[in-house]
Amino acid sequence: MANLAPSGAFNKDTHVFPVRVYYEDTDAAGIVYYANYLRFAERARSEMLRAAGIEIGRLAAERGLAFAVKSCAIDYLVPARLDDALEVHTKVVEIGHASLRAEQTVKRPGPGGQIRDIARLAVRVALLDRAGRPARLPNDIRTLLLNLSQSGSQS
Amino acid sequence: MANLAPSGAFNKDTHVFPVRVYYEDTDAAGIVYYANYLRFAERARSEMLRAAGIEIGRLAAERGLAFAVKSCAIDYLVPARLDDALEVHTKVVEIGHASLRAEQTVKRPGPGGQIRDIARLAVRVALLDRAGRPARLPNDIRTLLLNLSQSGSQS
Amino acid sequence: MANLAPSGAFNKDTHVFPVRVYYEDTDAAGIVYYANYLRFAERARSEMLRAAGIEIGRLAAERGLAFAVKSCAIDYLVPARLDDALEVHTKVVEIGHASLRAEQTVKRPGPGGQIRDIARLAVRVALLDRAGRPARLPNDIRTLLLNLSQSGSQS
Amino acid sequence: MANLAPSGAFNKDTHVFPVRVYYEDTDAAGIVYYANYLRFAERARSEMLRAAGIEIGRLAAERGLAFAVKSCAIDYLVPARLDDALEVHTKVVEIGHASLRAEQTVKRPGPGGQIRDIARLAVRVALLDRAGRPARLPNDIRTLLLNLSQSGSQS
Repeated sequence: MANLAPSGAFNKDTHVFPVRVYYEDTDAAGIVYYANYLRFAERARSEMLRAAGIEIGRLAAERGLAFAVKSCAIDYLVPARLDDALEVHTKVVEIGHASLRAEQTVKRPGPGGQIRDIARLAVRVALLDRAGRPARLPNDIRTLLLNLSQSGSQS
Repeated sequence: MANLAPSGAFNKDTHVFPVRVYYEDTDAAGIVYYANYLRFAERARSEMLRAAGIEIGRLAAERGLAFAVKSCAIDYLVPARLDDALEVHTKVVEIGHASLRAEQTVKRPGPGGQIRDIARLAVRVALLDRAGRPARLPNDIRTLLLNLSQSGSQS
Repeated sequence: MANLAPSGAFNKDTHVFPVRVYYEDTDAAGIVYYANYLRFAERARSEMLRAAGIEIGRLAAERGLAFAVKSCAIDYLVPARLDDALEVHTKVVEIGHASLRAEQTVKRPGPGGQIRDIARLAVRVALLDRAGRPARLPNDIRTLLLNLSQSGSQS
Repeated sequence: MANLAPSGAFNKDTHVFPVRVYYEDTDAAGIVYYANYLRFAERARSEMLRAAGIEIGRLAAERGLAFAVKSCAIDYLVPARLDDALEVHTKVVEIGHASLRAEQTVKRPGPGGQIRDIARLAVRVALLDRAGRPARLPNDIRTLLLNLSQSGSQS
């Protein structure tokens, strides 16, 4: 009966995920605390993977594999504030043997259709096994990721 | 183009708000960290107020009024885990001169339609002015809250 | 060379743990976000257990046992703010077969030696095994906890 | 009577700040959640500024000035885990007209004196006025920062 938690949607090869800003996300400066954009970005990546058919909880439980962030560079452009309705735009830009790179932009659609970029992230994520060693992307996961990064040309 | 961040929906006098569990919500015990249910509950209360026509950010900016939690009692019944699709059910049970009480239950709908209660909260929220003193609920806010707690009999 | 992360200290039967308020702890209302007191309280309980000789990480890794909060009731008395130097006072008030109860008060020492109570918590914590079932407190843990709650009479 | 919350200490031009890992910092993968290193880093920067004589809360309240992170690049080298006793090493590497750059390394001292680098951050912080515009570093703040970045040659 209630609407579901958002899973986002693809616009060509870019996954768009909505995020509402709550008190928990803000700090005493009245803006979203800088670490919390990484939480928003990880929610968006999780939902992009889920949309591609990759459930990270099952991947860990059944195959002992987990995606771990190896590096993250973020530019803060415009502060977001309480009640803002943001979007995280995620695009996979490289799929390696045991890792992938994504570019993510947090955007704030404004009244009148104008959109402001709030923050931009470049993230490298590696697949790790239970012992924390780099693991080659299994073929099925690799195929699902390739489909996802090429979905612009397919749909 | 993307679906919106969820605002939840009313089922009679109860507001139902969806929450997906991400890595940020869990801890090394593999379950949702106990403080994070209070974050889920506050998101749900914010959306319930928004649905009732009360935007907390504007309330603070334009009228210098903020809802502050005065007490919270929570029972943890069953642990929630990564990827769980939860619901927060919120019901306003009392509206006073300068405060309100709500009962909130975090639920996990399972396969086959069976639903488990994950955590139950009883929360008392007071309205405060800019100086942090208790503020009488303005008549318009009071009316919106009363409509909300009686929406079961109206719709 | 740097001072260590604080472990707190016992004053008779009460464990006192210092917490500094950073931006991450505050919200756009300019005060400590209500869920974050539960983080402060859990840090304090962890350090109290460590001081008693119980390392929770080793307890989980070596014996498959974890303390899980079963209920928590918190009263918010005075808001804490950025840069505040707080103390969490923790007292174990009951040790059962598979659980314990603690009372915790977050205090703010002020200039001139006067101390304000910021928040008060009553917490019940249960010991769980790997499957999440209640586990009887092992004798050695029980003894360490009993020493701790009676340390007032011993030292 | 209890030890104080840690403020860290300078080792020549590098500020060293201790951080203990609690359940709140970890996630279901059993390691410190990637966004939380930014929380650790901000605590360390706050304490480094406090040690230099700059109290960020007073800076905001009395002069309407706030330090805001403009960019942050972080490499995750080795995962940290529950109960780890970490150190954040912070060094100011550039002081501009309205901003500063710092390099921060999260380290884990091990048994036998060997130290592992856990994560490395490069952070650019700008000073903003109440309207969110870049603000020139006031002379007194600038002098305090210069002292801090040169403290290696002074002490």
